[in-house]
Amino acid sequence: MKGKIIIEEAFNLPRIAEQEARLYASVNAAVLLGKALADIDGRIAEMDEAGVEMQVLSLTSPGPQGLSDPVEAHKMAVESNNYIAEKVKTNPARFAAFAAVSMHDPKQAAEELTRAVVELGCVGAMINDFQSSGPDGNTMLFYDHPSYDVFWAAVEELDVLVYLHPRLPTPLIDDQLYRDRRWLQASAWGFATQLSVHILGIATSGVFDRFPGVQLAFGHMGEHIPFDLWRLDHKLDRDRFPEMRMAKNRTIRDYFATNMHITTSGHFSTRSLHGAIAELSAGRIMFSIDYPYEDGLLEGSAWFDSLPLSQPDLLAIGRENALRLLKLDRAPHNLKAGLSLKELEIGGLKGVTYPDEAASLRTSTRA
Amino acid sequence: MKGKIIIEEAFNLPRIAEQEARLYASVNAAVLLGKALADIDGRIAEMDEAGVEMQVLSLTSPGPQGLSDPVEAHKMAVESNNYIAEKVKTNPARFAAFAAVSMHDPKQAAEELTRAVVELGCVGAMINDFQSSGPDGNTMLFYDHPSYDVFWAAVEELDVLVYLHPRLPTPLIDDQLYRDRRWLQASAWGFATQLSVHILGIATSGVFDRFPGVQLAFGHMGEHIPFDLWRLDHKLDRDRFPEMRMAKNRTIRDYFATNMHITTSGHFSTRSLHGAIAELSAGRIMFSIDYPYEDGLLEGSAWFDSLPLSQPDLLAIGRENALRLLKLDRAPHNLKAGLSLKELEIGGLKGVTYPDEAASLRTSTRA
Amino acid sequence: MKGKIIIEEAFNLPRIAEQEARLYASVNAAVLLGKALADIDGRIAEMDEAGVEMQVLSLTSPGPQGLSDPVEAHKMAVESNNYIAEKVKTNPARFAAFAAVSMHDPKQAAEELTRAVVELGCVGAMINDFQSSGPDGNTMLFYDHPSYDVFWAAVEELDVLVYLHPRLPTPLIDDQLYRDRRWLQASAWGFATQLSVHILGIATSGVFDRFPGVQLAFGHMGEHIPFDLWRLDHKLDRDRFPEMRMAKNRTIRDYFATNMHITTSGHFSTRSLHGAIAELSAGRIMFSIDYPYEDGLLEGSAWFDSLPLSQPDLLAIGRENALRLLKLDRAPHNLKAGLSLKELEIGGLKGVTYPDEAASLRTSTRA
Amino acid sequence: MKGKIIIEEAFNLPRIAEQEARLYASVNAAVLLGKALADIDGRIAEMDEAGVEMQVLSLTSPGPQGLSDPVEAHKMAVESNNYIAEKVKTNPARFAAFAAVSMHDPKQAAEELTRAVVELGCVGAMINDFQSSGPDGNTMLFYDHPSYDVFWAAVEELDVLVYLHPRLPTPLIDDQLYRDRRWLQASAWGFATQLSVHILGIATSGVFDRFPGVQLAFGHMGEHIPFDLWRLDHKLDRDRFPEMRMAKNRTIRDYFATNMHITTSGHFSTRSLHGAIAELSAGRIMFSIDYPYEDGLLEGSAWFDSLPLSQPDLLAIGRENALRLLKLDRAPHNLKAGLSLKELEIGGLKGVTYPDEAASLRTSTRA
Repeated sequence: MKGKIIIEEAFNLPRIAEQEARLYASVNAAVLLGKALADIDGRIAEMDEAGVEMQVLSLTSPGPQGLSDPVEAHKMAVESNNYIAEKVKTNPARFAAFAAVSMHDPKQAAEELTRAVVELGCVGAMINDFQSSGPDGNTMLFYDHPSYDVFWAAVEELDVLVYLHPRLPTPLIDDQLYRDRRWLQASAWGFATQLSVHILGIATSGVFDRFPGVQLAFGHMGEHIPFDLWRLDHKLDRDRFPEMRMAKNRTIRDYFATNMHITTSGHFSTRSLHGAIAELSAGRIMFSIDYPYEDGLLEGSAWFDSLPLSQPDLLAIGRENALRLLKLDRAPHNLKAGLSLKELEIGGLKGVTYPDEAASLRTSTRA
Repeated sequence: MKGKIIIEEAFNLPRIAEQEARLYASVNAAVLLGKALADIDGRIAEMDEAGVEMQVLSLTSPGPQGLSDPVEAHKMAVESNNYIAEKVKTNPARFAAFAAVSMHDPKQAAEELTRAVVELGCVGAMINDFQSSGPDGNTMLFYDHPSYDVFWAAVEELDVLVYLHPRLPTPLIDDQLYRDRRWLQASAWGFATQLSVHILGIATSGVFDRFPGVQLAFGHMGEHIPFDLWRLDHKLDRDRFPEMRMAKNRTIRDYFATNMHITTSGHFSTRSLHGAIAELSAGRIMFSIDYPYEDGLLEGSAWFDSLPLSQPDLLAIGRENALRLLKLDRAPHNLKAGLSLKELEIGGLKGVTYPDEAASLRTSTRA
Repeated sequence: MKGKIIIEEAFNLPRIAEQEARLYASVNAAVLLGKALADIDGRIAEMDEAGVEMQVLSLTSPGPQGLSDPVEAHKMAVESNNYIAEKVKTNPARFAAFAAVSMHDPKQAAEELTRAVVELGCVGAMINDFQSSGPDGNTMLFYDHPSYDVFWAAVEELDVLVYLHPRLPTPLIDDQLYRDRRWLQASAWGFATQLSVHILGIATSGVFDRFPGVQLAFGHMGEHIPFDLWRLDHKLDRDRFPEMRMAKNRTIRDYFATNMHITTSGHFSTRSLHGAIAELSAGRIMFSIDYPYEDGLLEGSAWFDSLPLSQPDLLAIGRENALRLLKLDRAPHNLKAGLSLKELEIGGLKGVTYPDEAASLRTSTRA
Repeated sequence: MKGKIIIEEAFNLPRIAEQEARLYASVNAAVLLGKALADIDGRIAEMDEAGVEMQVLSLTSPGPQGLSDPVEAHKMAVESNNYIAEKVKTNPARFAAFAAVSMHDPKQAAEELTRAVVELGCVGAMINDFQSSGPDGNTMLFYDHPSYDVFWAAVEELDVLVYLHPRLPTPLIDDQLYRDRRWLQASAWGFATQLSVHILGIATSGVFDRFPGVQLAFGHMGEHIPFDLWRLDHKLDRDRFPEMRMAKNRTIRDYFATNMHITTSGHFSTRSLHGAIAELSAGRIMFSIDYPYEDGLLEGSAWFDSLPLSQPDLLAIGRENALRLLKLDRAPHNLKAGLSLKELEIGGLKGVTYPDEAASLRTSTRA
C-alpha cells in the first residue's frame, strides 16, 4: 500500500540524542539509536521504499515529562517545538509534528500547546505518561486531576489529538514488583501496565464527559486495554466508589467510540489487530511503527501490507483515519483525501508470491 | 439499537399474495404468509418494538422475473411500482421502496426504472435473479449479456442501488442435481448457488469496469461469495478464457470494495457476519430481515442488537450504510443522518442480563 | 513446520496423464501438468523443502467417476489401486494412498474398497463427485440413494475415510447457468456449488444416522458449506419435506462435529481458515495442497507455516488430525505420533523476518 | 450444555467468611457475599439449573498469602485443606478442591501440597499471587525466586495444576499509581496488571524449562497476557538482560502451548474469548465463573451456552480440558470422560429463540 501515514515516530534533539538512548538500549545499540533519533531528512528513502507518505514526528520519551524541574521541562518543550517546526517546514508533504509540553503547570501546558498548534503548525501533542515532579523527582503528576481541566479545555478548543506515550519511572522507583525482573518493566510489559492506569484514570475522571471533543490516542495496540473492555466495564464499581466522576451511565467502551484511538506502534500482531478491530472498529485504529525503536519501517510496513484485512479497513487504518483526525489535508501538508484503492495500490492482481496473501493472486492456468 | 433500517423486506399485491405464497410454504403457512405479504401498515407496531425505523419494501420473488411473457412481466412491474409508491407516500418516514422491473427488454427495464425513481421516488430496483423467457418459459436471461449495458448505464446515471434476490426456476427444471433432494433447492442451499453464478457473471463480464458507479447488493450474507473470495480470484483463469471481459488486473475482491454490498437477510449468524466483515469491511454490509420469510422482526433484531461488534460497526451495519447508499436522508424520507450512538441506544450501562453481551454491564458490588 | 501431512494430492496413470490434463489446463500447461501428475518419486525433494513428511496420493479427477461404462470404470479403479499400492510400498514413510472406486455398483464399490484397504493398504477412498452413467453418459449417480447403504456400511466397517472431490460434468451438460460464463464452471466456482449439493444430499439422507462411524472429508475449505451452516440448518424444512431421511432433531452442524472434515486444498486463505475454525474447530480441518493443480508445495506450505494460529492448532491442522484419522502411525507408514512442537519446529525464537509472523521474534535490543 | 466443569470457585471458612468479605464489597453486599462463600451444599440447585456438573473449590483470596506471619499462614492452609476435603468427601461427584498453601517456606509449601493431594485428594493448588511477608507485612515474596524450585519440583512430581489468583496488596501500599483512582486497583484493572507480572516472572525465570511438567492456570481470560503475546515476546530483551534465566530460544507463546492455561472466570466476553482461542487454542482455555464474585452461575452459564463457537470447542472449554488436566475421571470423582455432544446437549435442533444462536434452529416452514 502506498500513501501510508504513521504517527508514533520519535526524534530527539541532536545535542542529547545519543546520551539519552542509553536508557533504552545496550551500549552498542545506543549509538545507532541516538543517530536514528537525530536524523530526520535521512528517513525519506526508507519511507519511499516502505510506502509511507508521512511521518508525524514527536520528541522521544520521556521528553519534558522526565524533568522534575518545571523550568527545565518547559524550556525543553519550547526548544523541541521550535526545532521540529523548522524541520517540518522544509518538507511538510512528508513530515508533521506533535508538540511536546511540560505538564507541571496545566495552564502553561495549555499555552504552549496553543502556541505550538497555532504558531508552529503542530497537529497535536505527544505526552509521555505522568510528569515527574517534586524535589526528588519521585512525585508523579497525573492528568486526571481536576486541575488539568484547563489543559483539556484548551485541547478541545484547539481540536487537536493528544497522544499518550509510555515512559520509564525516572529515577527508577524501587518497586518490589519489578526489582528482580527488570526485563518486564519497559516495553515488554510494564510500560503498558503503568500507562493503562493513567489512561483509564483520565476516562474514569470524566474528562470525556466534561470535554466531549477531546480525542486521545495511544499506541502499542492499545496498551492492554481493548482486550479487557468487558471485564473493565463490568467491574468498575459505581456504588463503592461514588467519587469516580465518570458519567454513571457510560462505559469505557463507549468512550472508545467517541474519544479514544489506538495505533499499531511496535505491536505488529495480526491476531491482536483482529481483536482490536472487533472491539473498537477499524475506524479507531491507526497504523504506526514506533520508529526508530523498531528497526526500521520495512518490517512493519510489510506486515501491514500483507494483512488479511478488507481493502476498506486497510485504507482506513493505513491512511484515512490519521488524515482525517489530524486534518493532514490542510496546508501546509496538503495530503490528498479520497484517493482510490487503486491509486494507493491496494488490491488488484499481481504476480507476487506468498505469504503476501492480498497480493498472491496470479493468472492460474489450471482448473 | 433504535433507528435500524432494513432493506430486503417483501410485499405482494393483495390480489395474488396468498396464491403465490404456496410456492414457498406448506399449505397452512401459506395463508399466513400471504396475509403478511399483503399487509404493510400493520408492520409498524413490530417495527417500533424491534427498533426498526424504516423498511425498504420490494415486490416478493419472483415478481416480473417469473413471467415469461414480456407484456405480462412489464404490466406487473408497472402495477407494483404504482401500488407501492402510493403506500410509501402515506408514511415516507417509515417506508421506502425498490422498483420492480421486467428484464425482458433492457431498454424498457431502464425506462421503467427511471420512471420509478424519478416520478415515483423509488430508491433502487429489486430484481429476482434471471428473467424467465421463451415459449416454454425455460429460457433464462442473465444480465451479464452485453445487451444489458443500456440498463446498467441507466442505473449508473440514476445513481440508485440494484438488489439481486434469488428465485426458484419457473417452471422447475428437471435438474438431476436437485430432483431427489428438493429440500436443498430453495433457501437452504440452491437459491445461493444459482444466484451467485449470476452475480459473478455480472462482475466477470466487466459491468463494473464499464459502469464504475453501479452499486449492486445481495442478501443472505452474500449468497456464498464472501467466504470464497480468495479461491475465486485465484482460480479465475484469465489465460484460458480471454473472452472474460472483466479488467485483467482486477479481482472480485476489488469490486467488493467499490461496487458490491451484502445484507444479513435470513442469515442471522454471528460467525458468518464476523467472516463477512473480515472480507468486506463493516462498510459494505447492511442489516436486513427478509420479512416475512423470517417469522418477524423481533428475532433478527434481537440477534443484531446483541452482536459482539464494535459500536461504530453496529451503527454502520444497522443504519448508516443503508441511509447513505439509498440517500434516505433526502425528501420525502428525511431520515436523520449523524445520530449519535446514545441517541440510537447503542452502548451505555444498562440493567439487563445475558446473553445480551453489549447490554450486560451492571453496577457491580464485588471486587 | 516440519512433519506436515497433506491429503488431497493427485497422481495419474502415466499412460493417460498428459491427455487428461488437457481438460483442466491450457495446451502448454497441460504438458507440464501431465508430467507432474505422473511423477511420484520426483516429489520428495520439494516435500523436504516444504516440510511435508507425507503425501496421501489419489487418482486425479474424474477417475472412474468419469467413465459411464461400468466395466471400464471398475477396470480403471483396479488398475489404479494396484499401481499406486506398488508405488507406496517403495516409500511408505513418505506416501500413502486413497483407493479409486467405480461407483456404478455399490456392492462392487464396497468390495474394491475392501480389497484396496485390506490387501493393498489404502487408507481410504477418493471419490470424484457423482458417477457418470447411462448410454449417453449424462446420467448422474449420487451416493445418497438408499442403494448405496451397502457401500457406506463397508466404509464404516473398514473404518476408513472417504474423501469427496469435485469434477466437471462429462460430457459438459448444456447448462444455461454456465454456458456463457464457462470460467465460473470449474475450480473458480462451479465445482463447489455442484459438489456441495452432493455432500449435503448424503448428510440429509441420513447416512450419518444409519452409519455413525462414517467419516467424510472434502477439500477447498469445505466446498462453500462451513460459512453458511446457520442458514442451511435454519432453512432445511423438515415439515415440507418429510421424505428427507435425516434425523429430525439433528443439524448439518452436528454432523460436522462427528462425521465430516475439510481440508485447505487450493484455498490458502487466512480469513476463510479462521472462519472454518470458528464453525468447525481446528480438530476437523486438515492442511492439504491439491498438488499439482497448485503450482507446487512451497507456496501453500509457506502460507500455512506463517498463519496467525495458535501452536496447538497449527499442529492439529498440519499433522495430527490426518495422522489420527488415517491411522498413519501404523505399519507400514509408522509416522510418529506425539511429536513435540519443538521437534516439528513450531514456535521458538528465530532470526527470520516478516511477514512470517510466527517466526519473526528477534532478540530486541531496544526498549 | 450439561456437564460443565468450573474451576475458579471460591469458598471461605465459615468463621471468617463475612468479615473478610468486607474487603471486596460494600457493607450490604458483604453480608450476602460472606454467606455465599461459606455455603457449599446450597450451591447444588443452581449448578443443576446452570448445567454445571462440578465445581472445583478453593479458599477465597488472599487466604494464606495475606498472612505475613508464617505460622499463621501455614495454620490457615492446613485448616482450610482439612475442612474442604471433608466437604468434598460428602459429594465427590459434584465438588473437588484445590489446596491452599502458605508460600513463606517453599519446602513447607511443597509438603503441605503433597499432603493435600496424596492424603486429602486435592486436585491442585490455588495460590493468591505473592506471599505477604516481613515485620510490617509489606514484603512481597514471588515464586520465581530460585528458592522456590523445591516447590515447583514437588508440583511436577505430583502432576497437579497450580492456579494463580489475584489479590489486593495487604495492607494497601501507598501507591501513587492507584491512590487517586482506587476503583481501578482491584478486579477492574489492577489485579491483572499485578498478577501478570508475577506470572511472567515465573515464565521468564525458567521454571518451565527446569520443570517442564509444571502446569499453571490463571483466570479472567488470562490476566491481560494472551492479547499481547506478540509484543511481549518481541520485546523481551535477551541481550540486555542476560540474567533472565528463561531458555534463550523459547518464547512466552511457546509456554502457553506446553505449560499454561487460562479460564474465563469473571470475564464473559465473546470477543476476548475469540481472541484467546486465536492465540492459545481452545485446548488451553477452561470455562469458569469466579463464584460468588459473579452473582451466580446462571448468567455466565447462559453466556457460555450461547457462544458462537464450534461444538468441539464448546465441549473442550466447557468440560474436557478440565476433566483431563485435573484427572477428574479418577476416584473419588469418577466423572465420565468421552461423553458425546448429544449426551451433553450441545447442538441439535431445538425450539428456542434468539439470541441463543446455537439453539435457535427451528423447523422452518418458509423458503
